[in-house]
Amino acid sequence: MGLFKSKRLVYKPVKDVNLASDSTEFYLQANVKAPRMTGILVKIFTWFLESRIFGALLLYILKGDNLIHKLITNTDLEEPPLYVPLHNFEDNKEQEVKCLDFGLSPPEKVQLAIDCLPTTLEKPINGTKPSFIRWSIMDYFRAYNSGDITPHMVAERFIAAVDESSKSPLQMGFFINYNVEDILRQANESTLRYKKGEPISVLDGVPVAIKDEIDCLPYPTTGGTKWLHKQRPCTDDACCVKRLRLCGAILVGKTNMHELGAGTSGINPHYGAARNPYDANRIAGGSSSGSAAVVSAGLCPVALGVDGGGSVRMPAALCGVVGLKPTFDRISHEGVIPLNWTVGMVGILAGTVEDSLITYAAISGEIPSHQPSSIPAKINLPLLSLTKSISNIKLAKYDKWFDDCSDDVRICCSHALSKLQGCYGWKIVDVTIPEIEVMRLAHYLTIGSECSTSLDSFLDKNLTEFGWDARVALNIYGAFSSMEYIKAQKIRNRQLQFHKKIFSEADVIVSPTTGVTAYPIQDDALKTGELDYVNGAALIRYSISGNFLGLPAVTVPVGYDKLGLPIGLQFIGRPWAEATLIHLAFAMQAICLPEHKKPSIFFDQLRKN
Amino acid sequence: MGLFKSKRLVYKPVKDVNLASDSTEFYLQANVKAPRMTGILVKIFTWFLESRIFGALLLYILKGDNLIHKLITNTDLEEPPLYVPLHNFEDNKEQEVKCLDFGLSPPEKVQLAIDCLPTTLEKPINGTKPSFIRWSIMDYFRAYNSGDITPHMVAERFIAAVDESSKSPLQMGFFINYNVEDILRQANESTLRYKKGEPISVLDGVPVAIKDEIDCLPYPTTGGTKWLHKQRPCTDDACCVKRLRLCGAILVGKTNMHELGAGTSGINPHYGAARNPYDANRIAGGSSSGSAAVVSAGLCPVALGVDGGGSVRMPAALCGVVGLKPTFDRISHEGVIPLNWTVGMVGILAGTVEDSLITYAAISGEIPSHQPSSIPAKINLPLLSLTKSISNIKLAKYDKWFDDCSDDVRICCSHALSKLQGCYGWKIVDVTIPEIEVMRLAHYLTIGSECSTSLDSFLDKNLTEFGWDARVALNIYGAFSSMEYIKAQKIRNRQLQFHKKIFSEADVIVSPTTGVTAYPIQDDALKTGELDYVNGAALIRYSISGNFLGLPAVTVPVGYDKLGLPIGLQFIGRPWAEATLIHLAFAMQAICLPEHKKPSIFFDQLRKN
Repeated sequence: MGLFKSKRLVYKPVKDVNLASDSTEFYLQANVKAPRMTGILVKIFTWFLESRIFGALLLYILKGDNLIHKLITNTDLEEPPLYVPLHNFEDNKEQEVKCLDFGLSPPEKVQLAIDCLPTTLEKPINGTKPSFIRWSIMDYFRAYNSGDITPHMVAERFIAAVDESSKSPLQMGFFINYNVEDILRQANESTLRYKKGEPISVLDGVPVAIKDEIDCLPYPTTGGTKWLHKQRPCTDDACCVKRLRLCGAILVGKTNMHELGAGTSGINPHYGAARNPYDANRIAGGSSSGSAAVVSAGLCPVALGVDGGGSVRMPAALCGVVGLKPTFDRISHEGVIPLNWTVGMVGILAGTVEDSLITYAAISGEIPSHQPSSIPAKINLPLLSLTKSISNIKLAKYDKWFDDCSDDVRICCSHALSKLQGCYGWKIVDVTIPEIEVMRLAHYLTIGSECSTSLDSFLDKNLTEFGWDARVALNIYGAFSSMEYIKAQKIRNRQLQFHKKIFSEADVIVSPTTGVTAYPIQDDALKTGELDYVNGAALIRYSISGNFLGLPAVTVPVGYDKLGLPIGLQFIGRPWAEATLIHLAFAMQAICLPEHKKPSIFFDQLRKN
Repeated sequence: MGLFKSKRLVYKPVKDVNLASDSTEFYLQANVKAPRMTGILVKIFTWFLESRIFGALLLYILKGDNLIHKLITNTDLEEPPLYVPLHNFEDNKEQEVKCLDFGLSPPEKVQLAIDCLPTTLEKPINGTKPSFIRWSIMDYFRAYNSGDITPHMVAERFIAAVDESSKSPLQMGFFINYNVEDILRQANESTLRYKKGEPISVLDGVPVAIKDEIDCLPYPTTGGTKWLHKQRPCTDDACCVKRLRLCGAILVGKTNMHELGAGTSGINPHYGAARNPYDANRIAGGSSSGSAAVVSAGLCPVALGVDGGGSVRMPAALCGVVGLKPTFDRISHEGVIPLNWTVGMVGILAGTVEDSLITYAAISGEIPSHQPSSIPAKINLPLLSLTKSISNIKLAKYDKWFDDCSDDVRICCSHALSKLQGCYGWKIVDVTIPEIEVMRLAHYLTIGSECSTSLDSFLDKNLTEFGWDARVALNIYGAFSSMEYIKAQKIRNRQLQFHKKIFSEADVIVSPTTGVTAYPIQDDALKTGELDYVNGAALIRYSISGNFLGLPAVTVPVGYDKLGLPIGLQFIGRPWAEATLIHLAFAMQAICLPEHKKPSIFFDQLRKN
């Protein structure tokens, strides 16, 4: 301690911080100085980091350089630590909702979700026909019911498409594992059910992909590694997968992911980079890269991911699909690799907002948990309508943060937001969210500490089997002290108080989903991964409160940059207010649908031959 | 990492651990190798510890030597971490209780507690008259009501007694601060109320002392230091003190404590050792040393302490008084120095079980808290009776642990327990509580990490103002990694599961309160404090689950060792089951009262002149 003693930062009491638009709180841009590294540079950096003497010094400098020492370690904070973002249930008095009981079966919940969808008779407000729209769960259901197409046909097409996408020249890197026989068996069973006129639910026969961080039989759960599944065998479906299976969904395989969720690019040295369907030379984003990409490419209407630091929302935005991260502890974590305990949550990637709603209803339910919490034993689902929407919504917007992104992202998101306001008359509340960069560092310290604890048993044995960038991440992750961890939890408490204050003035916070669109994959990153903390910080900029404070959040595609790469807009909600978020996302989607573009890599699963 | 690589310890799943008496789980005795140090040795040790190179090495060796590396750091644990021992309220279906609503005022609660006391017509079961009994709250109340004695007279006697006890030859070190004028002012107001026949409650005019870790006007809150009060001014009464003041209690000053609660001897280098009224050459125990000693010496019937690692129960046992530590988060921590956030709780030291009940009712109530929890908005108070008691109580006893104490303690506690069984026909359930020593280390790591985080702002500025033993403690406290902290929380989860299983078979766990009785104060410890980890471990052996798992616990005096030093027996209860604990303590007290001995230092506050 004290190698470079500096003045301590004393955080002022929460009550003295002005959260209005005229606040003098400084907006600190992410000050990441680490150079982008790929290939041999990553290897050299790793060797340095793992050497006893240089490693300690390097870590010290890195931490200082990234402001962790200045903004967390050497600071005074009066808040008690908040270790877990559990939220007491408060009735949000959400408008236009249907309330679901936990006791219902997944198919019953799905049926109630269907009842919440807009009727097909409704016409969109602006009336124009979408130029491109992905097949939805209801499209599959109708096609199967009509008999024109069977689940078996879709399964065969799926297998062919995955086969094609895996090979040269595409090498899309969508899946880590898929089993042709298992897919066909499920499809045949579903086909039989439709023949008998007895589908289990609208999800019957619908292909759903699962991030390889979530247990799903008959597959091993690799977590994007070459070894984890050997140490931690998969013996059962995860709770959320079980519920999908109960609805008749075809579980089509395990999607690619950033190794151990320890990065945002989705470049996996073992299973290839999951490539972006809008431009196969660019990243899909991560860590739920494959799940976003397969939905984007039309292989499945829905996939599951896990979001510990934007890992569902970021790839969803980069791949032009919808991403929903529910409130902390809303979806059971049973059967998910415990890479952390206080920030992660199963999330949904879907082609449409309606499908995220249906899937959300299917996988929600009771949480068997050791920790006491006050999870509401019911779920609100929004009654979606194209012609009438909920009124009096107030959207909090922090301009300096909202605008801290590429020009294309800023212009596109601002434009979408204006149209939303224009359409529904919703009000923008200008606010200041202080210390966002501090929260990012505190979240990094937290997820890093938890991840390295979780993987500690394996580090000694398997370190050389790690990809290079994951090795770097885990070396840094393991370098924090208990005091730094506890101070990060004090910052969590502080930020929750800020956000509660903002939510007393507004229903949601609105922001871009990422600060940049999908960036190119450098050839020499394919084997080593890359260390790109600058792009990483820009990607993750808007994701942190969803994880660190356990708030629900949704991203919806709102347009494209000059290169035609998708851009997402994010709504962050009050705890347990998923219904409002889905409502807003649906309204936003209705406005943006006419301009949706088809990705260059797209597999048309429901085409008639 | 890796300096002495060793085989990793893999903890087996909780469900595979046998908790019955025939378990093969190994009972690991505390293996503390640090030699007892006082005087110049402590100073030298501190200098070493604070030097950059030697300090790191010394810490490494100390941690290894005390098994932290072997039992916590290099281990595999499948449990998720449990950071805060919050307990969902479960209706314990306690027998013979009165239920209090949170909304009542403190005097109303006190009145309901009085209604729970045994009637004066009841005769004790064995009928013998106690040889010595401290004046109780009801004795004060009756004396004041009779007019024979006034609060003013008691205040004057109190001031004279404190004056006498502070000076040579006694130098008992009871108080850090007391203010004659403030005491007399309160006493005069109370006297006036009695004259008018309008006492506020039975606590009106009753002297109550407050540990100097709890805010109480007009005093600074030193925490046993020479500097903390300058950095953290006391501007209001703590919540628990406010409630006592509302009942009319006379707040007579701030009791001595182990500096920053960072030790168990109660030897304070700045304010003197708080000495044991049963033998002034011996420790009172700590850290709430003064609060235990003043109750023991008859200066007050009740005092408040704080219990983060047995700090109420240990000195209570060593000084022959009752000590009650309620369930975590039962009493508001507002206005208590936040030396930790997940283990500490305000506790009560009292001459009798009845007085601990009255005080418990007075200070319980709403908790304004940032953290969601499911604190029951009601409190059960036990209906105490000398002639009938609750039936079918099952007491869990782990023999190897119970017997891991000095011969005198073991014999005395076993004897008391036999008498209790004989009297009430309660059943002993033989159990095994595994990994108790692991829990002690995990608790040490937790309270240490939290304490050093809490005091971090002050360490740079004030380190030289610290006593030597507190400096050593804080140096060790600050040396843990975030991974070690999180693993300690995994052990917390694991232990809670063990204890829940035991509580499904038994109502309480019974044990001695401390492994040894009060040990002598070495002369050269007075200035430097002492480092006596062996005696420290023996003192704290039975306290940990109360803090680390947030369980309520009570200690009641049950006898004396060969030297006439008090011995306490402890009951540990289910969360929120304080009523059952108080009931058992009362039954135990009734049995042991006839043999109670008067301490050699005793001030008879209610004597008629």
